[in-house]
Amino acid sequence: MSDKAIKEAKAFGEMVEVASSKDKGYNFIPKGYSIPEDADYFHCTSNNTISGTQMKEFPKTNVAMVCDMSSDIFSRQLDFEKFDLIYAGAQKNMGPAGTTLVIIKEDILGKVERHIPSMLNYQIHIDRDSMFNTPAVFAVYVSMLTLEWLKDLGGIKFIEEVNNKKAALLYNEIDRNPLFKGVVVKEDRSTMNATFILNDESLTETFDNMWKEAGISGINGHRSVGGYRASMYNALPLHSVQALVDVMQELEINK
Amino acid sequence: MSDKAIKEAKAFGEMVEVASSKDKGYNFIPKGYSIPEDADYFHCTSNNTISGTQMKEFPKTNVAMVCDMSSDIFSRQLDFEKFDLIYAGAQKNMGPAGTTLVIIKEDILGKVERHIPSMLNYQIHIDRDSMFNTPAVFAVYVSMLTLEWLKDLGGIKFIEEVNNKKAALLYNEIDRNPLFKGVVVKEDRSTMNATFILNDESLTETFDNMWKEAGISGINGHRSVGGYRASMYNALPLHSVQALVDVMQELEINK
Repeated sequence: MSDKAIKEAKAFGEMVEVASSKDKGYNFIPKGYSIPEDADYFHCTSNNTISGTQMKEFPKTNVAMVCDMSSDIFSRQLDFEKFDLIYAGAQKNMGPAGTTLVIIKEDILGKVERHIPSMLNYQIHIDRDSMFNTPAVFAVYVSMLTLEWLKDLGGIKFIEEVNNKKAALLYNEIDRNPLFKGVVVKEDRSTMNATFILNDESLTETFDNMWKEAGISGINGHRSVGGYRASMYNALPLHSVQALVDVMQELEINK
Repeated sequence: MSDKAIKEAKAFGEMVEVASSKDKGYNFIPKGYSIPEDADYFHCTSNNTISGTQMKEFPKTNVAMVCDMSSDIFSRQLDFEKFDLIYAGAQKNMGPAGTTLVIIKEDILGKVERHIPSMLNYQIHIDRDSMFNTPAVFAVYVSMLTLEWLKDLGGIKFIEEVNNKKAALLYNEIDRNPLFKGVVVKEDRSTMNATFILNDESLTETFDNMWKEAGISGINGHRSVGGYRASMYNALPLHSVQALVDVMQELEINK
C-alpha cells in the first residue's frame, strides 16, 4: 500500500503504477512486473500492515530503490545496500510515534532543480544533524533505548529468529484449526501482522469475549477489512502469541 | 527573528522585510514601519528567545497577520482574533518538543494554485483532524495535561500575572544591582527570556560557580550572543526566579 506515496508523486511528476494487488484487496504481493528503466525511482512498501502481506524479495533494478519500511524495519535481515532511500515511522518497531528514521545514499540527493520547502529537503536535515527543527526528543530518545535493547539481545539476527517463531506459531494454528482461515496468500504472509477470519461468523461474539478475557487487546482487523489482525512487532514476546493460540484452541474444544 | 520564515518565503514568492533590528543585535522591537497593502501576509515573531525581546503591540494592518508565538504562547492575554495564523512549537510553554500548535482562520486557506506537499497543506491536516500522519502522541498528550494544569490554575489571566511578577522581580534586580546590566531596550523586554550581562567580566567564574551551586542551570546566553539568559516560561515558579535574584545579591555583597 503506497497510496500516499502515489498521490504525492503524481502531484509533482509523472507516476507509473507498475504493480498493485488493490483489486484483490491487497491479499498478495505482486511479482514479475517491470520497472521503466528511465524512472527516477521505484517505490515500494515492504510490509502491508492492514492486509498482512510482506515483500520477501525485492525487484532487481538499476533504478533508485525507495522503500517504506515503517512496519517491518529492524525485524529481519536484509541487504540494506540495495536500497537508496529507506524511511520508517518509529511507531511500530522502533519507539513512540513522532519520529521517522530515514536512511539515504547521499548520491541520490541534489538532483531537483525546483525549490523544495526546507522541512522536506533531506540535504538540510543532514547538514543540521537532524536538528533543523526541534525534534520530538522523547520519541528519539526512547527509540535509542529500544535500539540499544535490540542490540543487547543480539540484534536483528536474533529478533528475526524470534519473529519467525512467533509467526510460525500463529500461522500454524490458523492453518490447523478448522474454525479459522488466513486472509492472504501463504507465501506473502507477513511476520509482523497476521490477518485471519472466523469461518463461522456466528462465533464472533464468543471468540471476542474469550480473547478479551485472556488479556489480549487490539486484534480486531482494520476497519477497512474486518476480521482479525494480530500484530507481532519486535517488542511482542513469544508467550503473547501463545496466549492467542491457546484461546483459538479453547474455542475449537468448547464450540 | 524570523530568519527561517524569510528564507522560506523568498524561495516561493516575493518577500519584503518591512523591519528588523538585526543591525543592533536584535536589541529592540522595530516600530512604526509600514506594511505593503498588497502583501499576501505579514509575518512576525512575538517573542525573541535569544535576544530577550517581546512584541507588546502588534501593527494595525488589513493584511493577513501570521505570528510565530513559539516562545510566548499562552503566557499573556492577547486579542487572538487579530491573527489569521498563529503557530507555536510546544517546547516552551505547552509541553515536550515534537508537536506544533497551529491556529488558523479558515478563510485564508485554499488560495494557492500550485500543488503543496500534503504534509505542508493545512487543509489536509484540518480534514484529517490532525491525524494525516501519525502524530507525536506523547508530546500531544503531555501538552493536553499542561493545558489542563494551566486552566485549573486560572488560565492565561492567572499565569500572565505570575509571569509579570517573575519578570518584574528579575528585571528590578538587574536594574538595581550595579554589577549587572540588561541587554535589550527596556520597553521591549521579554517576560519570558531576560538577557543580561556582568559589567565586570572578571566576575564571570565566581558568578557562574555561585548560581550552579544554588541549583540553577541553563542561564548561559545563547552561544551567538553570550552573557546570561534566564528563561521564565509558564512552568517556572516564582521562587526559582527568587533563587537567581538571591545569588545576584550575594555576589554584590561578597564581591
